[in-house]
Amino acid sequence: MEIRVVATIAAKPEFKAQVTEALLEVIEPSRQEVGCLQYELHRDLDKEGAFVFYERWKSEDALNQHNKTEHFQRFAASLEGKLDELTIRRLKTLA
Amino acid sequence: MEIRVVATIAAKPEFKAQVTEALLEVIEPSRQEVGCLQYELHRDLDKEGAFVFYERWKSEDALNQHNKTEHFQRFAASLEGKLDELTIRRLKTLA
Repeated sequence: MEIRVVATIAAKPEFKAQVTEALLEVIEPSRQEVGCLQYELHRDLDKEGAFVFYERWKSEDALNQHNKTEHFQRFAASLEGKLDELTIRRLKTLA
Repeated sequence: MEIRVVATIAAKPEFKAQVTEALLEVIEPSRQEVGCLQYELHRDLDKEGAFVFYERWKSEDALNQHNKTEHFQRFAASLEGKLDELTIRRLKTLA
């Protein structure tokens, strides 16, 4: 069963540049993962320093694998203390 | 410029069925709109009665047109008083 993720990230103003860089850096290696179907980063047009990831994974296992990868672990660690918001929603398509 | 939308909706528990029905009903007419590229409804796997729309629109104007359509106006009116959360994020793809 395909799992989708919407992750909402808001950088602390003083860390906006570093957070943006970390977000951009994790995209390519994530897209290379065998279970990754889509991995897109968006910026919020109405809120400075706010971003949204939209991700599609082949299965729950593929998502769990992703979370254990070296590039994701490094990414998560690099965001520590730099965010005002981090919401991760695991989703299933309804229609 | 393509505009994307992530809308997060949480139904009040007593209105979950009606909200689900309204969400499902607005999908087909929205997909028929000339400016609509993608219009997908998801349920949150970790939060009962929570849903996420992921939408892609050809332009800001296409999104504005959508918000004025009869089917969207009826949809928005039908949700009034039935939600614990409604967050609408207008997004632009970064990568």
